[in-house]
Amino acid sequence: MRKVCVVITARPSYSRIRTALKAIKEHEELELQLVVAASAVLDRYGNAHELIEADGFQIDARVLMVIEGESLPAMAKSTGIGLIELSTAFDNLKPDIVVTIADRYETMATAVAASYMNIPLVHIQGGEVTGSIDEKVRHAITKLADQHLVSSEESAIRVKKMGEDNDTIHVTGCPSIDLAVDLLHDEELRFDPIKKYGGIGRLTEIDDGYIVVLQHPVTTEYQSSLNHIRETCEAILNLNTPTLWFWPNVDAGSDGTSRGIRAFRDKYDPEKIRFFKNFEGIDFLKLIKNSKCLIGNSSVGIRESAFLGVPVVNIGSRQSGRQRGDNVVDVAHDASKIEGAVKSQMAHGSYPSQTIFGDGNGGVRIADCLARMPLKYQKRISY
Amino acid sequence: MRKVCVVITARPSYSRIRTALKAIKEHEELELQLVVAASAVLDRYGNAHELIEADGFQIDARVLMVIEGESLPAMAKSTGIGLIELSTAFDNLKPDIVVTIADRYETMATAVAASYMNIPLVHIQGGEVTGSIDEKVRHAITKLADQHLVSSEESAIRVKKMGEDNDTIHVTGCPSIDLAVDLLHDEELRFDPIKKYGGIGRLTEIDDGYIVVLQHPVTTEYQSSLNHIRETCEAILNLNTPTLWFWPNVDAGSDGTSRGIRAFRDKYDPEKIRFFKNFEGIDFLKLIKNSKCLIGNSSVGIRESAFLGVPVVNIGSRQSGRQRGDNVVDVAHDASKIEGAVKSQMAHGSYPSQTIFGDGNGGVRIADCLARMPLKYQKRISY
Amino acid sequence: MRKVCVVITARPSYSRIRTALKAIKEHEELELQLVVAASAVLDRYGNAHELIEADGFQIDARVLMVIEGESLPAMAKSTGIGLIELSTAFDNLKPDIVVTIADRYETMATAVAASYMNIPLVHIQGGEVTGSIDEKVRHAITKLADQHLVSSEESAIRVKKMGEDNDTIHVTGCPSIDLAVDLLHDEELRFDPIKKYGGIGRLTEIDDGYIVVLQHPVTTEYQSSLNHIRETCEAILNLNTPTLWFWPNVDAGSDGTSRGIRAFRDKYDPEKIRFFKNFEGIDFLKLIKNSKCLIGNSSVGIRESAFLGVPVVNIGSRQSGRQRGDNVVDVAHDASKIEGAVKSQMAHGSYPSQTIFGDGNGGVRIADCLARMPLKYQKRISY
Amino acid sequence: MRKVCVVITARPSYSRIRTALKAIKEHEELELQLVVAASAVLDRYGNAHELIEADGFQIDARVLMVIEGESLPAMAKSTGIGLIELSTAFDNLKPDIVVTIADRYETMATAVAASYMNIPLVHIQGGEVTGSIDEKVRHAITKLADQHLVSSEESAIRVKKMGEDNDTIHVTGCPSIDLAVDLLHDEELRFDPIKKYGGIGRLTEIDDGYIVVLQHPVTTEYQSSLNHIRETCEAILNLNTPTLWFWPNVDAGSDGTSRGIRAFRDKYDPEKIRFFKNFEGIDFLKLIKNSKCLIGNSSVGIRESAFLGVPVVNIGSRQSGRQRGDNVVDVAHDASKIEGAVKSQMAHGSYPSQTIFGDGNGGVRIADCLARMPLKYQKRISY
Repeated sequence: MRKVCVVITARPSYSRIRTALKAIKEHEELELQLVVAASAVLDRYGNAHELIEADGFQIDARVLMVIEGESLPAMAKSTGIGLIELSTAFDNLKPDIVVTIADRYETMATAVAASYMNIPLVHIQGGEVTGSIDEKVRHAITKLADQHLVSSEESAIRVKKMGEDNDTIHVTGCPSIDLAVDLLHDEELRFDPIKKYGGIGRLTEIDDGYIVVLQHPVTTEYQSSLNHIRETCEAILNLNTPTLWFWPNVDAGSDGTSRGIRAFRDKYDPEKIRFFKNFEGIDFLKLIKNSKCLIGNSSVGIRESAFLGVPVVNIGSRQSGRQRGDNVVDVAHDASKIEGAVKSQMAHGSYPSQTIFGDGNGGVRIADCLARMPLKYQKRISY
Repeated sequence: MRKVCVVITARPSYSRIRTALKAIKEHEELELQLVVAASAVLDRYGNAHELIEADGFQIDARVLMVIEGESLPAMAKSTGIGLIELSTAFDNLKPDIVVTIADRYETMATAVAASYMNIPLVHIQGGEVTGSIDEKVRHAITKLADQHLVSSEESAIRVKKMGEDNDTIHVTGCPSIDLAVDLLHDEELRFDPIKKYGGIGRLTEIDDGYIVVLQHPVTTEYQSSLNHIRETCEAILNLNTPTLWFWPNVDAGSDGTSRGIRAFRDKYDPEKIRFFKNFEGIDFLKLIKNSKCLIGNSSVGIRESAFLGVPVVNIGSRQSGRQRGDNVVDVAHDASKIEGAVKSQMAHGSYPSQTIFGDGNGGVRIADCLARMPLKYQKRISY
Repeated sequence: MRKVCVVITARPSYSRIRTALKAIKEHEELELQLVVAASAVLDRYGNAHELIEADGFQIDARVLMVIEGESLPAMAKSTGIGLIELSTAFDNLKPDIVVTIADRYETMATAVAASYMNIPLVHIQGGEVTGSIDEKVRHAITKLADQHLVSSEESAIRVKKMGEDNDTIHVTGCPSIDLAVDLLHDEELRFDPIKKYGGIGRLTEIDDGYIVVLQHPVTTEYQSSLNHIRETCEAILNLNTPTLWFWPNVDAGSDGTSRGIRAFRDKYDPEKIRFFKNFEGIDFLKLIKNSKCLIGNSSVGIRESAFLGVPVVNIGSRQSGRQRGDNVVDVAHDASKIEGAVKSQMAHGSYPSQTIFGDGNGGVRIADCLARMPLKYQKRISY
Repeated sequence: MRKVCVVITARPSYSRIRTALKAIKEHEELELQLVVAASAVLDRYGNAHELIEADGFQIDARVLMVIEGESLPAMAKSTGIGLIELSTAFDNLKPDIVVTIADRYETMATAVAASYMNIPLVHIQGGEVTGSIDEKVRHAITKLADQHLVSSEESAIRVKKMGEDNDTIHVTGCPSIDLAVDLLHDEELRFDPIKKYGGIGRLTEIDDGYIVVLQHPVTTEYQSSLNHIRETCEAILNLNTPTLWFWPNVDAGSDGTSRGIRAFRDKYDPEKIRFFKNFEGIDFLKLIKNSKCLIGNSSVGIRESAFLGVPVVNIGSRQSGRQRGDNVVDVAHDASKIEGAVKSQMAHGSYPSQTIFGDGNGGVRIADCLARMPLKYQKRISY
């Protein structure tokens, strides 16, 4: 039995990898080890660890590693703590393979710890292109990783160009799409978001449709987080449409963005908005599937929304460089442009499903790759 | 004045960068900030920090970050401490540029801290190819770095292929070669190594010539460090030639190799060997320039030795993949093969000078690049 | 000039030490060095560092050291980070004396770092008695400290009994009382709390009097934080009196208490309550001086309130064992008992001033002690 | 079954606690958990962890926490790492009781981690008096500990005076004495130290008797470590008697002392000395039992030597303040005084056995206390 240790550091990463975890757990040649770390164990960011256990997964190690503070050094220091703690976790668990997901800053700790301890490292979702620090992190992890399980053909080509051996690159599709398969032809929401998740705010009724907002801070533009979110706030206020607004994840600029949202809420006490911390992955997908428009800069707007055909207004640079479907309209941080784009998307309505990032079998493909791949931790650039 | 913060984590890195430090210090548009960290502040590894001050450089921060222990997790943990401490140092010094050198495991801390703090990162000696963990570290740092000052055309091509913008790649040559320029046509040693550096052992006289040994452990082959060094020990014992032997640098396997050398010394108390901790860079170059052969796996055997025409026997995988001159003979960890190769190199004598890795002006070119480069910390892969 | 390095780790510690900082800064034989750390640099806990700078003090080092997480290990880990970071700060600042304040868990990092670095350690507010982990921390710091500047005669006797030399114990009074001197005979509030600090909630008017609530979690009773705060919430709801409610400081249980308050607020949206993050020290004192009753478990209820004659209802074990004035009524975590005690205190009205914890010259006395004390860092128990 | 987690951070601590570990392991109401940390897992300090496993104990967690460096901040930083790592270990092992031994600087990490995590803390060997930083550490740990298992009546009285409840103080005797019981009436060495342990040096024969040297650096006199050891070296050289010399433990000054010894060895290559890294505890006791004199500043000279009647010359302040038997002569760091004292002790010969620090049943008494003690982690000073 190969021991496969997956490290999850944030709630969205869990949603993305969930079906792969299930496939690993059920694979007869694999034993799943689960390390839940960073914002994924924190109350302020939605207690992903409770969600994970509620889904029937056993957590082998919980890792506290987020140093609180509204500054960039806190990101570096948190990653440092992560290195110290994750190397202890790996030393205890003795995995045959470590799996790291995507490109959040703290995943560098997973990648470096595994590499330095001579444990074969698998990177999921390499080869993509974005703005901000994620771009550096993602490609650096590609160079530390021994195997690359990518979402799309485009990503596979990019990883290969970076000097990775062809044998180590596998197009599995993104497992986040797997969750969406069952929703594709379901036209109803089937739950009351306000009843189920509470939230805060004066909006109580969404029967006539709604839009969804989810905007994260962009790390390397830390100073402007506050300005950015203000533009979005103004646009939403002007749209005057029932809105479900989600808090951003932890990041150096998080409190900048969060402060902006709080100030907005306190100032206007807006009648048609309700604020939420977070939903279970599947509920969030149902929510956007049935929404008139998804606004912000989340990767969900790029990936799952392409598959589900959700109209998306993508704001700013966070997702720039990423391949995208017809369902996305890009706008700058400008209130009137945001407002205009949302109106136009609401008028357009839903789009046909596209499979650029996966066809719904990503989880199973990932487990199969993990079972078959050679357990090597030495490599050399291919040119 | 641009504040350029150079982080030095090991004695050999200092030797390599010394002329660049001088050129930065003397450049009228640059202000040098010096952070000395990891093994470079430790007695056991030659107290590089004292050497640096003796050379007239002022140290702005000393960083303790080496966690002691003969295990791989200690490497990850030391890097974690480095991230915590270096982000504090950068926060205090507020540099405009951070410079990281080569590919030792702990340099990842420099690269990640600078990237996460939005400080433009310059990497010296990217684009090369080796075995072991250094290979992963080097290329990962390339993906975190904003500018690349490389040693050779070959390296420049490789960095470009990895997706870096052409504008950010500069062939400066390796500044370690700068030190060697004056020695090229000097046929005398001009100092008595035993008198000047002491050392331990029974050898007291090298007037009739000598060979030099410097063998480091290879991290990802940790378990075999002891076996490897035994082969070298046996070969040297059989050669029965005056030998100056240098201790290896800190690494997870360091104590494996060191233990092997100590056991060898205690068992045979060899008559023709003297053991040294380390020399000043220039003295070490003089020493190998006048030696009959350099044996081991140091990068000095590849770079400076090519320029100086020193006969080299390079053992094992540590330097594999690197471009090399005619002066190098590669052998496996096998006592009789090592012995044979050394005999043949001693018979051959010195080689003509080659400029593959630099022509002696690397330091000045590096300073010029640092003064002219744009202060950007955002980038995107070029394909 | 003696360099005196004061380490401040929380907003209330700053309020307490403020006049001593001023006296040190103005003392001609002393140079003030200020390290601001832990929750004192965090937005969530009131950004004490901004307040400190606004008061004209220069901060020499800011230290991020709070590891986020709702668990006890996070307290230990945060203290560990503090040790790493504060030893770097002390190494840079090279103080002649380090001053640590009171007994919060993270102050152990200050005390251990200074002791291990052979810097004479001064402890302010040793010798008191409380419940919870603070009790262990306070006395352990007494045993690490070289000089003890205590608030009351009772504390001095206790420190001496613990085996400290009489020469090293000085009754200075608590400098927090200094702030209160000018308020003693001022019968007016002189600022509008809601106008000046905003806050959140439906209460907008306090002209007819108000009560103040400030309740912290009690660390070693972590699990019951939520239950405790619920009792207080219920009592306040039943009292139905204009109430200004302050959020607690960071602690392992902080989120337990905070969650309780948030749940209460969300459920009842209470008409007569306004929630605040924190006030400047002097404004808070004005506020309680003019309040009908202070409710909770803050040390302000014990110290400053004794001097100012504020009626206090002290809940639970957090302040137990501390000497107290006539102005305090102690009650258990029981809604009806809390309600009864508050009613009775409101009926009683203000008390005469008592000087148990200081007479208003604490800051100056502390500075004088620091200037005269011997710079010793070796000691031996007195029996 | 109570889970008792003993944390061992140095080879001598293991020797001291060994019989207690055995008694805990064999006690039917106790389950032994063993954490081996700091210098006890390091090659340079004698690989105590290997010795522990060879003795049949299972190690539940190995903790790397020593930051290398010849400076005082390294002690603080190592303790910081210890806090981070030990809190993870305790979180994994979930002990009912944590046991910390004596007063080395890094044991503060054990004490703080257990206290902050609400785990009842037992301190072995509190209440003693010494010089240097150990004095502060020991008494601070007493104030963090919930139960105190002390060596002598004198220590019990001191702990009580510090304000600890009588119920929590138990005179068990030092378990290190347990090992010595069987040796008391055995007049022969029964092993050849040089054959069994090797060592380095020219001495090869001890049939006509020998002396033993073991001198540690004294932390708070860091700068003078080198001077101190030189006096000892000179004295030993003049004595010209067969000498077995042991290297000191890790400490901030360790390299000062070690460097002095190495310089001495390299300069004189002394004919009658052999240098050893360390012996198994029982062998070391046999060795001193049969020696003509033990010289240095080890606590073995105070405790076990009193029981075994070994003539001891105790140098400098490291053991000052400790109760001692008739067998100890105290001298300053002065070569001629050391020489004189050793001559006089050699002339005197062995002393009668004294039971000040234990009667040989310490281990069993400790296990019994651990099984019976209340599992409390809250306390209040007794006055």
